[in-house]
Amino acid sequence: MPRTLHLNAFLLGVGHHEAAWRHPRTDPGRVTDLRHFQELARTAERGTLDSVFLADSLAVGPAVRHNIQAVFEPLTLLAALATVTTHVGLIATVSTSYNEPFTTARTFASLDHLSGGRAGWNIVTSAQAREAWNFNLDDHPAHADRYRRAAEFVEVAVKLWDSWEDDALVLDPATGIFADTDRVHEIGHAGERFRVRGPLNTPRPPQGRPLLVQAGSSPDGVTFAGRYAEAVFTAQQTLVDGQRFYATVKQAAVAAGRDPELVKVLPGIAPVLGGTEAEARALADELEELIVPEHALAQLSGMIGVDLTGLPLDGPLPELPDAATVQSHQSRYQLVVDLARRERLTVRQLIGRLGGGRGHRVVAGTPEQVADQIERWFTEGAADGFNVMPPLLPSGLEDFVDHVVPLLRARGLFRHEYTGRTLREHYGLPRPGSRYAGDRELVTA
Amino acid sequence: MPRTLHLNAFLLGVGHHEAAWRHPRTDPGRVTDLRHFQELARTAERGTLDSVFLADSLAVGPAVRHNIQAVFEPLTLLAALATVTTHVGLIATVSTSYNEPFTTARTFASLDHLSGGRAGWNIVTSAQAREAWNFNLDDHPAHADRYRRAAEFVEVAVKLWDSWEDDALVLDPATGIFADTDRVHEIGHAGERFRVRGPLNTPRPPQGRPLLVQAGSSPDGVTFAGRYAEAVFTAQQTLVDGQRFYATVKQAAVAAGRDPELVKVLPGIAPVLGGTEAEARALADELEELIVPEHALAQLSGMIGVDLTGLPLDGPLPELPDAATVQSHQSRYQLVVDLARRERLTVRQLIGRLGGGRGHRVVAGTPEQVADQIERWFTEGAADGFNVMPPLLPSGLEDFVDHVVPLLRARGLFRHEYTGRTLREHYGLPRPGSRYAGDRELVTA
Repeated sequence: MPRTLHLNAFLLGVGHHEAAWRHPRTDPGRVTDLRHFQELARTAERGTLDSVFLADSLAVGPAVRHNIQAVFEPLTLLAALATVTTHVGLIATVSTSYNEPFTTARTFASLDHLSGGRAGWNIVTSAQAREAWNFNLDDHPAHADRYRRAAEFVEVAVKLWDSWEDDALVLDPATGIFADTDRVHEIGHAGERFRVRGPLNTPRPPQGRPLLVQAGSSPDGVTFAGRYAEAVFTAQQTLVDGQRFYATVKQAAVAAGRDPELVKVLPGIAPVLGGTEAEARALADELEELIVPEHALAQLSGMIGVDLTGLPLDGPLPELPDAATVQSHQSRYQLVVDLARRERLTVRQLIGRLGGGRGHRVVAGTPEQVADQIERWFTEGAADGFNVMPPLLPSGLEDFVDHVVPLLRARGLFRHEYTGRTLREHYGLPRPGSRYAGDRELVTA
Repeated sequence: MPRTLHLNAFLLGVGHHEAAWRHPRTDPGRVTDLRHFQELARTAERGTLDSVFLADSLAVGPAVRHNIQAVFEPLTLLAALATVTTHVGLIATVSTSYNEPFTTARTFASLDHLSGGRAGWNIVTSAQAREAWNFNLDDHPAHADRYRRAAEFVEVAVKLWDSWEDDALVLDPATGIFADTDRVHEIGHAGERFRVRGPLNTPRPPQGRPLLVQAGSSPDGVTFAGRYAEAVFTAQQTLVDGQRFYATVKQAAVAAGRDPELVKVLPGIAPVLGGTEAEARALADELEELIVPEHALAQLSGMIGVDLTGLPLDGPLPELPDAATVQSHQSRYQLVVDLARRERLTVRQLIGRLGGGRGHRVVAGTPEQVADQIERWFTEGAADGFNVMPPLLPSGLEDFVDHVVPLLRARGLFRHEYTGRTLREHYGLPRPGSRYAGDRELVTA
């Protein structure tokens, strides 16, 4: 079978551009309206996209004054989207730093059951001090500590999903056997950070395990992805950077003893679409003019973990410390510094460039031009697909589905219809067996 | 306005009787089928019930061999039920012992937004050692400790729901003001167990706060209910016990400085319905015969926290320690001991009596007889309404809605149609204002 693209619709409020909600083509009141998200999920499904994808953050700060915020908690929102769709995958971001593995494993299992096997977990470690403040801490744990916790957290979650073998639910009224307890296993996990006895309190989910997605691109993040991730969401500004990152992730998978084909690399792309290049450019300019600069600078400060507020907008970015010393989002920090230096951007230009996708690549052009970019990254070793981040919602997703997807299909790069029902099937990934299958150890009291 | 009943449909698998899934009128495969629960929620709404109610437990043990278990996590399930209903309330049980207040407050706020103001939280403290084992502990915390944590947990959650004033979301594209940060407040909570800065990362939910329900009937539980609960779910076997408990809860509310009318007392009732009393009795007998006694004894042991397995089935219950020394479900323990003594039940008879509702009152009879019992408890000071626990699902809920509800309506005891849209409106409870309203303190960095 020829290699084909994987495309997620990354849903965020009324659009990914930070000023989207001020643009006349959006209705900002819809951020609290479930039907808005249900319509977006149906549009994604009409375009046979692999999934809808939701980001998350566990705090709100002064930036809320000027910027739209997510209203819904991702898993409850996806459960509500599951009921109005039949095929599209449902990926939620959940932090390993401020949750318990039993709860997270269980909730994703529930979403997978509810949706008939469409759940995916985007694993993040939460990098803001502001988030730590909501969970009894004075600051977020150090970068390496967060990743050590994340690794153990995922190990526990996988054991819990495996704790019910696939055939454990017997449901035989005649004998009164509900579940075969020879096929329901305690996991007995006792590690550095977690002690979890198990089993999980739900039968094995339809996909065996939800799809595991990861979104940190630092060295710790890539090592983690190599071991655990089945899809990696990343921000890459140039083809060369994208190719380098792609190769690094695939190597990390090989180093962890895995088949690199089973780890999909999906950069973000924010397509600003127009019937002509000039129209697309005009839309990008309109959005840039709607940015509130002081707000954007506060956002950028939060994103890279360095206070830049008060900087002169028409001067350059100051010298900044080495990324390896940064305890927040290391890879995003490096990307911003590189972008500003490479293109010799003023602070004002930099926030304009970042406004469209918070560091993700913005491509303004016709559907053909956007399809060309997608094809090029896909065929030249920089991507297995993309997280599509429309600047305006719903219009930007509708434009992508109606005008870009048909081109990708015509080029033989993307499915014409769904051939599977589960998210794993859309990604061409196998359904994992339970590690306990065949291991007939009784659940003990 | 005359006082009227409040009725919740307590949904559990294919019925509340522990052998429900073995009865020919159920299809046990539906425990993993979302549509089963969607149909139940629609049936509840057809009966203009106040809400659907979901219990929860954070562990599974050997009892799963013979007994149906919940598959879905309550909040994701309710989010999926919200999309196929428009009025019926959605109450989920969530433990304060193994969650964080920020996460719980946020998820209920999300459900309230998704459902247009229909969310309720049944607050429990989790009493099984088996649950503690899934959360890094060797045993559950002591009874009083759990309630101290619960009290602080709820205080934090309420502050978080209040942290956005009702009019904080401005959404003014012209000025670029998304939210009025003068109306979004840090809560700065620093207590014995939690430090939470806030604000919550979602605007104030439609109900202001979700409905607060509580389900512990021990002295600690009643004190807690008096302070925080707006509805109390309880197991009471006799009218006299029900009257005593009802009065105790109302007094606890008064003692906490609250209006006792604003705390609704809702005993569980498991109606075993038949066209004649003999038919109802026959159904109850059929179900009792399907009980697996060894399993029922293991269940009972778990419920009261005392190992009774291996006891002779046709002998009496042995002498048991005083309830106040019990660290698990104190009130349920007392109920079981009282029931066995009052009626001089053998162990076999006791498990038969408990099989229908795990300690909740079972009423087998015609719709008139069930309606009579409901009316009597309601008018004689034992109940403001009931948590209805059909022995078989869906048939038992359909029978209740089609045959008991019309009688209650005809007697002027229950609504003919919904007069409000939110769960608070169904319960006749006011929408609370934000404690921070008028307090114009800026969110600080």
